[in-house]
Amino acid sequence: MVKGILYGVGVGPGDKELITLKAIRTLKGCDHIIIPKSSEKSDGVAFSIVEDHIDMDKVIELVFPMTSDKKKLEDSWTSAADEISKRLDQGQSVAMITLGDPTIYSTYMYVHKEIEKRGYESEIIPGVTSFCASAARAGISICENSENVVIIPSAYDCDNLEEMIDEFDNIVLMKVARKMEMLGGMLERKGLASNIHTVSRCGFDDEIVMRGIDPEKSKGLSYFTTSIIKKGNR
Amino acid sequence: MVKGILYGVGVGPGDKELITLKAIRTLKGCDHIIIPKSSEKSDGVAFSIVEDHIDMDKVIELVFPMTSDKKKLEDSWTSAADEISKRLDQGQSVAMITLGDPTIYSTYMYVHKEIEKRGYESEIIPGVTSFCASAARAGISICENSENVVIIPSAYDCDNLEEMIDEFDNIVLMKVARKMEMLGGMLERKGLASNIHTVSRCGFDDEIVMRGIDPEKSKGLSYFTTSIIKKGNR
Repeated sequence: MVKGILYGVGVGPGDKELITLKAIRTLKGCDHIIIPKSSEKSDGVAFSIVEDHIDMDKVIELVFPMTSDKKKLEDSWTSAADEISKRLDQGQSVAMITLGDPTIYSTYMYVHKEIEKRGYESEIIPGVTSFCASAARAGISICENSENVVIIPSAYDCDNLEEMIDEFDNIVLMKVARKMEMLGGMLERKGLASNIHTVSRCGFDDEIVMRGIDPEKSKGLSYFTTSIIKKGNR
Repeated sequence: MVKGILYGVGVGPGDKELITLKAIRTLKGCDHIIIPKSSEKSDGVAFSIVEDHIDMDKVIELVFPMTSDKKKLEDSWTSAADEISKRLDQGQSVAMITLGDPTIYSTYMYVHKEIEKRGYESEIIPGVTSFCASAARAGISICENSENVVIIPSAYDCDNLEEMIDEFDNIVLMKVARKMEMLGGMLERKGLASNIHTVSRCGFDDEIVMRGIDPEKSKGLSYFTTSIIKKGNR
């Protein structure tokens, strides 16, 4: 039997309309659709983006825990790959959706690599990234002409953040919420306080867009917060 | 009279299906649609993506020359802003389309800034970037977990390219065609020859996807060529 194909489908950053025609066609054409959740009772942000386009009978919810425990993470990828493999073996196609774009900090890629290792075919459908959508909401470019840009996953430790800010024209800080206070002080010292643009929960009803340092507004920002520091054309 | 709004609409990297629902709705709702061309007789790649969705009567073709002559560039932005302003003044809405995403190295942003300076309202509709689409075609991630990534517009001089390659987990080189030979030698010296993935004319019929250094294939690559060097998870 011809084996099925796994599709990693980027559904964009949150706004229901920022999904592509290709993502919708792929979801409609697949036999199963995996919706990743961070816990059994999480709200399913990604699901809300695709619900208008899919047949609910196709949905398989899988939990990918948010944890730094490597064993637990790997177990979740392996068991997702098991669920997918058995369907691909039956010639069925499987789509796994991912917020934003699958190639940018997504859980999908771990599953993708495991599935490829097992010898199955897979295809990635790109999506709009959260940092592009955030820049759009802030009304700014991320980079122009000869400017470079560095993207930093700020939920992790980053010893050389100050160096990067000094060195680069534009700095994108993803998942930056918990670093806002530290960042505010650093940018004020450097005279760059007005060069930071921050967007929290981009594209959702409770979206926040701010320019500059605002300690009051910065309190309790969502995990889904992106800052862009622009030192180039402003 | 209420003034019209300018929309900067990202139409994705080239594949006709990688346009978002929001881009299509915006184009359908606007009174005028500006299609940028690099010369009077250029093929109009961006046009081919939107032609199925728009009313031809709305199309305004504007030439934005590919030149390093700053005066000529600024003149093209100013004259585009003039064309747009006179329609916004009449309460008409104008969309200007851009390949990929408007916030990533797009001509649109220069026009956007000029229009904002003149006091009009504008909105950016994000799109799928060429580097995300290229990574998808190569079947690789651009970044995972704590990895950082730097994006370099390689059509320009970049003195510290080697440093960046040493320093970063992942390196995205846009418009890299003319640097391929130099890059090949550099990566071979560093033992990173198999870590480069290159996609040329991503999403078009004559797309080329290659892994590693291939001097033969690298000859005569299109201007629309992106390389991703992955030193992180592979």
